[in-house]
Amino acid sequence: MATVLALSGSPSPTSRTTCLIERTATDLRAHGHHTRTLALRELPAAPLLAADTKDPAIARAVRLVAEADALVIGTPLYKAAYSGLLKTFLDLLPQHALTGRPVLPLATGGTPAHVLAIDYALRPVLTSLGAQVAQGWFVWDQHVATAPDGTTTLDAATGHALDRITGQFAEHLAPSTLAAA
Amino acid sequence: MATVLALSGSPSPTSRTTCLIERTATDLRAHGHHTRTLALRELPAAPLLAADTKDPAIARAVRLVAEADALVIGTPLYKAAYSGLLKTFLDLLPQHALTGRPVLPLATGGTPAHVLAIDYALRPVLTSLGAQVAQGWFVWDQHVATAPDGTTTLDAATGHALDRITGQFAEHLAPSTLAAA
Amino acid sequence: MATVLALSGSPSPTSRTTCLIERTATDLRAHGHHTRTLALRELPAAPLLAADTKDPAIARAVRLVAEADALVIGTPLYKAAYSGLLKTFLDLLPQHALTGRPVLPLATGGTPAHVLAIDYALRPVLTSLGAQVAQGWFVWDQHVATAPDGTTTLDAATGHALDRITGQFAEHLAPSTLAAA
Amino acid sequence: MATVLALSGSPSPTSRTTCLIERTATDLRAHGHHTRTLALRELPAAPLLAADTKDPAIARAVRLVAEADALVIGTPLYKAAYSGLLKTFLDLLPQHALTGRPVLPLATGGTPAHVLAIDYALRPVLTSLGAQVAQGWFVWDQHVATAPDGTTTLDAATGHALDRITGQFAEHLAPSTLAAA
Repeated sequence: MATVLALSGSPSPTSRTTCLIERTATDLRAHGHHTRTLALRELPAAPLLAADTKDPAIARAVRLVAEADALVIGTPLYKAAYSGLLKTFLDLLPQHALTGRPVLPLATGGTPAHVLAIDYALRPVLTSLGAQVAQGWFVWDQHVATAPDGTTTLDAATGHALDRITGQFAEHLAPSTLAAA
Repeated sequence: MATVLALSGSPSPTSRTTCLIERTATDLRAHGHHTRTLALRELPAAPLLAADTKDPAIARAVRLVAEADALVIGTPLYKAAYSGLLKTFLDLLPQHALTGRPVLPLATGGTPAHVLAIDYALRPVLTSLGAQVAQGWFVWDQHVATAPDGTTTLDAATGHALDRITGQFAEHLAPSTLAAA
Repeated sequence: MATVLALSGSPSPTSRTTCLIERTATDLRAHGHHTRTLALRELPAAPLLAADTKDPAIARAVRLVAEADALVIGTPLYKAAYSGLLKTFLDLLPQHALTGRPVLPLATGGTPAHVLAIDYALRPVLTSLGAQVAQGWFVWDQHVATAPDGTTTLDAATGHALDRITGQFAEHLAPSTLAAA
Repeated sequence: MATVLALSGSPSPTSRTTCLIERTATDLRAHGHHTRTLALRELPAAPLLAADTKDPAIARAVRLVAEADALVIGTPLYKAAYSGLLKTFLDLLPQHALTGRPVLPLATGGTPAHVLAIDYALRPVLTSLGAQVAQGWFVWDQHVATAPDGTTTLDAATGHALDRITGQFAEHLAPSTLAAA
């Protein structure tokens, strides 16, 4: 059983990315893993941008990463890459913060034309942190409905696809965790 | 004569990137261009991360971009890419904010091994905003001295190289600006 | 008036890429430029792969690049990047073969999900050769019809879009060429 | 025990890349794995460039990939990316040819400034083929001596580093292979 940190890099309060992250966390628990979640948008802005790791909330977020056996990292795609919010947080982590840690990257975007940003933009950054990055998954914004109250819901086909992806990642975690033990 | 915005994406108060940006602005003025500078770290953190373009300081920064004929964009390289601070600001610009605008990308970093981040990470993002991105320039941290009081100075060879790069960019601006007039 | 080399990196005899390249060459001539074309698949395979620039056909191809004021470079997208055929040819050019030369990148592909390969894969390689790479253009395979005899035709909307892109590139060439004269 | 294909994408007969590949294959055998090697430069040029998978030598090379449990893929870095020879071969593989297969990427280059090409250029292509790409390794040309007769030798420190990298990959193969069995 692994402890997985599900991290959302969306700056938006009604976020498709956060919707994916929560579904994934639920799936991982169903596979017997512990999960914790971290919404980067809830971190205090000034110490985050100043990389002030002495701030208690920032320090706690860094600790959540350090204590995780694996991570799910979700981001909206803006300007052909990951969100600035996500990169701002990754920037303040130690250089080898994700060494040997499996990471499942998830992205949402307004156009399928930006799918490759997962592999050409996000993956190299996670690799530079030492992560073992799994095949990622992209969800087109159109497949996540947003209700007037801000609630977001995946459509059925997208939900099933995400369950399958998460299931593969969950199974992949078991031997890694044993190997690392 | 063009109006050039020299923008620093460094979160650090004693910044090598800002040192480059200031030298470049001086060079551009010597070539007869108008310059304005924008240090992203001085923008208010909470509205910046929330992409609140109604905040007066954020709105002014967006306007500086809109009014520029060309830009110099400097960033430190962290985790094999541009700073999260820079990307956070680029994220809140309109999708075509840099269309047709010449942009000179400059980067500083602790290892020459990260030089390609200019072309593989920063350039695609600037291209997605519509910019005409010039050949960029990388400066190794070792070539910028930091005095105890935080003052930064380029070494002579690096300074001359930067003057040459900026000179080429300055000459390139003239016909573009006329063509656009 | 500029001399533009229109280069196709498709290995296929009935190529959508070549169709784009020919339309672009026609457009450039209509704008008063000279054009030459180069189909990389017609080069002799063994000296091409061995980077044998003494082979007469390879030497002629390298000379076509050297004599061009600007280039249009077309490639199919395979495995999330440009064709191996195109890269094999670019590999044997001198390191600064495209310095200061405007290049218009065009790509065709079976899925719009690979659009970003132009900016994340092709552009950095062209930039390393010194090119001034213009905004590129992607054409989805579905928008190029292939007749039973192998003839390829762009659909009307795609043709008009390509004419517009080529027109912008053609106008952009004029001042560059004058400036270089 | 896994069957590992060690593949060299260098077009050169006296190749630093091939030197790395052979050392890695020796290391993997010392860890109890089976190895096979494939030098892409020995494949027949015309059918390779034409993606003619019916050619017997090409068909055999494709079969070597299909039969491998894991791969080591070595390439020289040219023009800020992998060799055209390597990409030409990857282009003719089935779209999911490397699905679930661990791949160790190795690169050689004339400048450490191109290290990131492993993560920004090669890794996305291997990922698009479905590979589980391990942390890669770059060797600067200066660390591989070439004797007058064309023999290549790694210097001691580089050899030890490569042994360590290969050792990690070898250990990583064991559980994956069991899991897949």
